[in-house]
Amino acid sequence: MSAGWFRRRFLPGGPLPAPRPPRPRASPVPYRRPRFLRGSGSGPGTADAPRRPDARPVRSPARGRALPWNAGYAEIINAEKSEFNEDQAACGQLCIRRCEFGAEEDQEWLALCSEELLTGHYWALFDGHGGPAAAILAANTLHSCLRRQLEAVVEGVVAARPPMHLSGHCVCASDPQFVEEKGIRAEDLVIGALESAFQECDEVIGRELEASGQVGGCTALVAVSLQGKLYVANAGDSRAILVRKDEVRPLSSEFTPETERQRIQQLVGVLQREAVEPQLVSPQSPEATREPDLCLASLPKAFVYPELLAGEFTRLEFPRRLKGDDLGQKVLFRDHHMRGWSYKCVEKSDLKYPLIHGQGRQARLLGTLAVSRGLGDHQLRVLDTNIQLKPFLLSVPQVTVLDMDQLELQEEDVVVMATDGLWDVLSNEQVAQLVRSFLPGNREDPHRFLELAQMLIHSTQGKDDGPTGEGQVSYDDISVFVIPLHNQGQRSDGH
Amino acid sequence: MSAGWFRRRFLPGGPLPAPRPPRPRASPVPYRRPRFLRGSGSGPGTADAPRRPDARPVRSPARGRALPWNAGYAEIINAEKSEFNEDQAACGQLCIRRCEFGAEEDQEWLALCSEELLTGHYWALFDGHGGPAAAILAANTLHSCLRRQLEAVVEGVVAARPPMHLSGHCVCASDPQFVEEKGIRAEDLVIGALESAFQECDEVIGRELEASGQVGGCTALVAVSLQGKLYVANAGDSRAILVRKDEVRPLSSEFTPETERQRIQQLVGVLQREAVEPQLVSPQSPEATREPDLCLASLPKAFVYPELLAGEFTRLEFPRRLKGDDLGQKVLFRDHHMRGWSYKCVEKSDLKYPLIHGQGRQARLLGTLAVSRGLGDHQLRVLDTNIQLKPFLLSVPQVTVLDMDQLELQEEDVVVMATDGLWDVLSNEQVAQLVRSFLPGNREDPHRFLELAQMLIHSTQGKDDGPTGEGQVSYDDISVFVIPLHNQGQRSDGH
Repeated sequence: MSAGWFRRRFLPGGPLPAPRPPRPRASPVPYRRPRFLRGSGSGPGTADAPRRPDARPVRSPARGRALPWNAGYAEIINAEKSEFNEDQAACGQLCIRRCEFGAEEDQEWLALCSEELLTGHYWALFDGHGGPAAAILAANTLHSCLRRQLEAVVEGVVAARPPMHLSGHCVCASDPQFVEEKGIRAEDLVIGALESAFQECDEVIGRELEASGQVGGCTALVAVSLQGKLYVANAGDSRAILVRKDEVRPLSSEFTPETERQRIQQLVGVLQREAVEPQLVSPQSPEATREPDLCLASLPKAFVYPELLAGEFTRLEFPRRLKGDDLGQKVLFRDHHMRGWSYKCVEKSDLKYPLIHGQGRQARLLGTLAVSRGLGDHQLRVLDTNIQLKPFLLSVPQVTVLDMDQLELQEEDVVVMATDGLWDVLSNEQVAQLVRSFLPGNREDPHRFLELAQMLIHSTQGKDDGPTGEGQVSYDDISVFVIPLHNQGQRSDGH
Repeated sequence: MSAGWFRRRFLPGGPLPAPRPPRPRASPVPYRRPRFLRGSGSGPGTADAPRRPDARPVRSPARGRALPWNAGYAEIINAEKSEFNEDQAACGQLCIRRCEFGAEEDQEWLALCSEELLTGHYWALFDGHGGPAAAILAANTLHSCLRRQLEAVVEGVVAARPPMHLSGHCVCASDPQFVEEKGIRAEDLVIGALESAFQECDEVIGRELEASGQVGGCTALVAVSLQGKLYVANAGDSRAILVRKDEVRPLSSEFTPETERQRIQQLVGVLQREAVEPQLVSPQSPEATREPDLCLASLPKAFVYPELLAGEFTRLEFPRRLKGDDLGQKVLFRDHHMRGWSYKCVEKSDLKYPLIHGQGRQARLLGTLAVSRGLGDHQLRVLDTNIQLKPFLLSVPQVTVLDMDQLELQEEDVVVMATDGLWDVLSNEQVAQLVRSFLPGNREDPHRFLELAQMLIHSTQGKDDGPTGEGQVSYDDISVFVIPLHNQGQRSDGH
């Protein structure tokens, strides 16, 4: 766990760091040659891509290479933040073949192959924390997990409607009717494959980091184009948006301690109800003494899990951290079952550090982590304690589906995927405005999507000539994909 | 647990039951005089309201009484379903006074009072199952719980912005800034009060049913008009919609075993991963044998809670219940982490009865219950077993807020609240169409909202002259409120 990690995201408006001299990157994760790009080149952002660890936008290493549909990719590494690049990326063509379980495990599978059953494209961004190890592993692994998961169900994916039995033989005459009633479509198999692939990749990362004595975690944002649909799977705080002439549509939502507050609070149980509502407890009558247990008795004891907090944290949320002066006062709070707020009388245990503390970009889980979903972090503990973070984290992504065939796509309709550093500084609307002002004037430029990705990053660096003119600055690593959607319904249909 | 309960909702298209002679209603719950209606009349649907236990719409008992803003209420009792009316309702004026904890507990509080700090209106529908006991208790109790919860925070509700400390004395100079940053508004206190009131009422029902040796549960749908906002709190499968000239807006969503599948499956843990993905487990290598534990070790053991199913049910969802012929086949399934679907090889344990089984209106939790949120059911067990339902149920509602002051309300803008029987037969759009075709032609009728509520119920009875002309039939109890919204911003502002 490298120093400086707990300040992974700088405060906006914080001091501008002095530039540091470039340092050589040294990744302790063994490098694996990426095998999933068309041809033999490495993907953008994979471990061997040339990088300049300074604070200026760099040209994408993939410039001029055969990125699918000339998608643009750019990245920036903030040397002040870390000596390693914690952002990693991967993209390439996905070739899904029909396979028997365990049969072709050892073969190359993502090279362009003539016998494929289905062809798609894959883009992924990983934003690491605690070092780049998990992000590098994810960039090297997740596409393989996804390929395996898709190949396991590919007969169902290419069917008009997935059959109840993968063999296609009905055991029961009414099976197609049940599938119809449940509304199960081919896209549900792709969603399921993405969900399982993230989980599988998380397990692989856990094993590999443990075996090599490393630590760290990363967020993951993946886009997959398959059969005329774009699937966006997100676990973390990166973001993808669709930008069209008259529309900006979010394709993902962020998973942070704030957005997942209720899920996280719920893990540590049903407690303190008697403290919250003292008027319900009257110790005089025998019935009344049983009241606080009613709720507990009817819920699985499993949910009362204060051990996870080791007595060091309070599950409740307050507007700020409480202090001695607040004791005995009625202050605003909320618990896991509440979307609204109420008041409670402050007790000594409420003065502990909050399970989720801080606001917006500063919100932290257990004072440690700014995201609530992602890959890795199996060994992560709160500083100087034995309190684990992993029980509170989910590796499963939220998947949204964009039906591109229904959209009447225009030449300048794009998806912008970027890590959080971009979105800290630019809103969806500002990014859309930059896209719309850039693309129409550069129709002849074969690298215009790449130039756009670089321009987006450039506008986060607070230059006078930044197109927003607002001079906001990001000190985070930033990676951006700009993916043109035009004409891809046909091209992605490899079947 | 009364017989016939497991068929609480009839199959659409099922046989039309022969009419039964009316039976006297006998409620084993002691009747309490409702104290929350303007004047001394009883509310519609409370325990002493006159009822005709036949299958025809009845005139609302509240006709001509001073329902707030002439809201219309109608109900129907289907004698074939149960000899008791399992639908209960309550409505009245809410007068919130400033009070010290425990000071005025014994006083009448909902009579029209001049010293109130805040006045609002309250409507509630409760759809019981397993008998009417829980629904009657809820109709007699929930408004009191809500009043107590609101009075405990009323100083914050009437403030421009809730203070960090209820006393109003800042302990820390930056407290208002923290409240501002968290975005805490007065309406969040009302939401919190509704959430806590449902939980408190659930506890009261648990105690009262246990003390009287009764059983049962109910759904709860509550609308509260306060300070120009309409709060709709829902726990169960009733529904409220806003109908305007050019808009139909759902104000609630339903909580059923289907809509809460992932939450319910998650309760019984992280299991069977090794069975789902056998290719990940290779017992030859020492590392591999530890794989299935990786996931379990990193999650709280608390989540692995198969005891709740007592070995009788399977957590996994399949398109239909599996049988012996499916053994060894790869069939469609999904687990708690999946919104999508995948295939798994069927094992013997998959042949157990599913935790959630059935489709749409027929979906049941543990083969027993059609709803996943509500009040009561503390003693409910799966027939002939010791398996409890309560650990899977939530009493906390989802609350939506309608800012009426922002709406430029017209005279015929209404909210329609109804139990599930109405929505089984009529869509939101069909109800809106009936509202729009009825109200403009009856502007002079002082009882037009009542007539509309009756007409809505009438159109579920499959009459030729039903306005939808489709002849669909509901055999369920149905209760409907029609609440006109016009001019109420001013009237509800009692402060």
